[in-house]
Amino acid sequence: MSRARHNDPHDTSPITPDFLPAGTPVSRPSLAPSSRSQVPDFQVMTILGRVAELRAAGADVVSLCAGEPSGGAPAAVSAKAAEVHASGRPLNYTSTLGISELREAIAGHYRRWYGVEIDPRRVAVTTGSSGAFMAGFLCAFNPGDRVALARPGYAAYRNILSALGCQVVELDAGPEVRFQPTPALLDEAEARHGPLAGLILASPNNPTGTMVTRDEMEELATWCREHQVRLVSDEIYHGITYADTAGETRGGARGSAVGGAVRDTGGGTADVVPGGPQDARGVCAAEYSPEAIVISSFSKYWGMPGWRIGWMLMPEDLVPAVGGLSGSVSLCPPAPAQYAAVEAFSADSYAECDAQVAGFARARALLLENQDRLGWTHAAPADGAFYFWAQPGEAMLATYGTSTAYCEALLEGAHVALTPGTDFDTANGEKYVRLSFAAGYDAVAAGIERIVAFQRG
Amino acid sequence: MSRARHNDPHDTSPITPDFLPAGTPVSRPSLAPSSRSQVPDFQVMTILGRVAELRAAGADVVSLCAGEPSGGAPAAVSAKAAEVHASGRPLNYTSTLGISELREAIAGHYRRWYGVEIDPRRVAVTTGSSGAFMAGFLCAFNPGDRVALARPGYAAYRNILSALGCQVVELDAGPEVRFQPTPALLDEAEARHGPLAGLILASPNNPTGTMVTRDEMEELATWCREHQVRLVSDEIYHGITYADTAGETRGGARGSAVGGAVRDTGGGTADVVPGGPQDARGVCAAEYSPEAIVISSFSKYWGMPGWRIGWMLMPEDLVPAVGGLSGSVSLCPPAPAQYAAVEAFSADSYAECDAQVAGFARARALLLENQDRLGWTHAAPADGAFYFWAQPGEAMLATYGTSTAYCEALLEGAHVALTPGTDFDTANGEKYVRLSFAAGYDAVAAGIERIVAFQRG
Repeated sequence: MSRARHNDPHDTSPITPDFLPAGTPVSRPSLAPSSRSQVPDFQVMTILGRVAELRAAGADVVSLCAGEPSGGAPAAVSAKAAEVHASGRPLNYTSTLGISELREAIAGHYRRWYGVEIDPRRVAVTTGSSGAFMAGFLCAFNPGDRVALARPGYAAYRNILSALGCQVVELDAGPEVRFQPTPALLDEAEARHGPLAGLILASPNNPTGTMVTRDEMEELATWCREHQVRLVSDEIYHGITYADTAGETRGGARGSAVGGAVRDTGGGTADVVPGGPQDARGVCAAEYSPEAIVISSFSKYWGMPGWRIGWMLMPEDLVPAVGGLSGSVSLCPPAPAQYAAVEAFSADSYAECDAQVAGFARARALLLENQDRLGWTHAAPADGAFYFWAQPGEAMLATYGTSTAYCEALLEGAHVALTPGTDFDTANGEKYVRLSFAAGYDAVAAGIERIVAFQRG
Repeated sequence: MSRARHNDPHDTSPITPDFLPAGTPVSRPSLAPSSRSQVPDFQVMTILGRVAELRAAGADVVSLCAGEPSGGAPAAVSAKAAEVHASGRPLNYTSTLGISELREAIAGHYRRWYGVEIDPRRVAVTTGSSGAFMAGFLCAFNPGDRVALARPGYAAYRNILSALGCQVVELDAGPEVRFQPTPALLDEAEARHGPLAGLILASPNNPTGTMVTRDEMEELATWCREHQVRLVSDEIYHGITYADTAGETRGGARGSAVGGAVRDTGGGTADVVPGGPQDARGVCAAEYSPEAIVISSFSKYWGMPGWRIGWMLMPEDLVPAVGGLSGSVSLCPPAPAQYAAVEAFSADSYAECDAQVAGFARARALLLENQDRLGWTHAAPADGAFYFWAQPGEAMLATYGTSTAYCEALLEGAHVALTPGTDFDTANGEKYVRLSFAAGYDAVAAGIERIVAFQRG
């Protein structure tokens, strides 16, 4: 156990973590950067840098590459943060897992949106979902553990898991499975590579926007339980969902995400009908698995990316580990953001966020209407999130060879910034681009016209 | 290399980090918490919980256990944060390593306090010093690497390193070496255990408050360079230093930390005299080692623990690794805190912080004056920080057996909260207590009277 410590006052033998196998590497006397920190650069960072340069030089750039909602936090949240700071009172460390008022408010959110009772003790407030991934992965997985995830997917999962010494098992999740893991893909992965320790599920997914249905979530949760695999469900895009694909591509159990039914749930009571309209918020893994780690964030639906505040629902058996280790790893999440985030769960705040989602829906509808004009193909059904994942069409791929080259030409030639697919899929990504419509309708409208004109030559 | 990725569209073989040795553990099909997350609980968390309970029951508790300054942030910093939030503008992700305005302001701070030129590109703004430790350790050390640190010391170093698979080599650093690492201790550690990859140095140290001199810093930096060992210098207590021990216990090169000489440097120019009064801020490892990782924070001198903002000076060769990996691990530090922290480097802000330090100095002087009345022995010379590390005296240790039992009795019987030494030293900690005088003069004065009365019985 790494719990072992010295009791003899003069014992200075190294404290060797017990999860390292015998014969583990001799310590390197070297100032070289660690191997584990060598992760591929995100293209999007380079592109954002170039966008800033072009803008500094006076160019009018339409940036559709970042996943940042344009509307900002709910008014009451910003006002509360301003009040906390204006008071000038000292902002000390909070409890490691967050202030109890916020943990209770988050538990209330699960009652409201999903009709599930979550013990606030199982809620850990974290420094963005990033903090939740770090704490969750550290507490659930040891070095050498195999963790499966869908390809394409959010590259940070891969990079954090690799840095922590886990083996990443990518599932080749193409359009035929709507870019999501399935029990068949998991069986195949275990047959080929040996037992898995974890599965990362993201629904809505980044970059494809696809979601799993209620039945699919139940199947995956059951598979994980039967195989003793820890399910980690990334639900940070919950609440940003669109009604039309739901009816189209899956059962009719999904209602309108943008219409009145969902807005009603804002400050309402807990009269949730499983399979009813609330499913449109996304299906929560906690409904099917008390053993799942569920991760969410104020960054997307609530429009607070720069605040760095999110949360994790911890399975009971991980509560002591997350609490204990987080005391060392992060001390606590940002205190002012915690006090302010309590205001995120009022009827007014939900209504403001839903209005933002309605804006994303208009931008998305415009993209779908213009898909033929764009000449883009293989578009993923964007059930949720604010991403459009598609191939730029045979002509463009023939001209530019790769989506990276296409994106570069588009940025330089038409001042429209997209993200090439390689940030999400190292195997097939050179055929795809991700367009983020988080910037809203007007930016998307301008972007479409520029792309069409650019492609016309 | 963990950089390896799939190029074949249907290749799903696991991506195994290259730093894992051949034959690394078979992935565990198990829902048990990871071994690496099993860290000892901090006693101080239990004690803080009990303090809250007692206060809720109406008791008047003097809490001298937490390392939280009582004064809060400089007024201009709080005002800026209030303004940022009151504007209601969206707070998006910033650059991963922080906004350039803050990185430049931090570089300016090094010019002002230490007379060293730091390229702002080498400054990474982080989510508290916690974020700097995580990023720094990940980028500098691989699993299996041996990293040395002084015992007693801040337990989070041990816990993070262990969780990341490093072997922790504790140096038995007693009062004879003023609780700090020395080349002799490092030579002995390498002779006994093999080559080291890193050394963590903390000056002023938590819990002892001891500092290394300019000569000692130079010797340690030289030793590390010659042995290819990465020096990580935790300087979060810089600026909280006391003049009297400097003259007493080491060369005369140290001036007054609380008097006029230092306050003058606040908004002043860069006329720093090495070995002159500015040394009283603490000696910065960057003065002697461009290869050192230097970690600091707004939590202590600037009184901003709950804001979760700090920084790291990265050696040139680690800049790409820290930038790349942090994009996945943390995305960026909290944006509002970054905008506000730019205001921390004005003449007024320095003056406010120095006034806080003067308050700590008065509380410390009171403790030293009352040491005989308390009957405490083996007190460490608190050169800096706001901790008093001492043994509660033979009579008390005889009565209670351990410092843990003594602290418990004191809390229940006299409503004074101290931290038992076991949080900082698992070998000798049962003989020591840590009293934090961060709460200020009045709290310390009340605490002393209660402890004296309690011990009288």
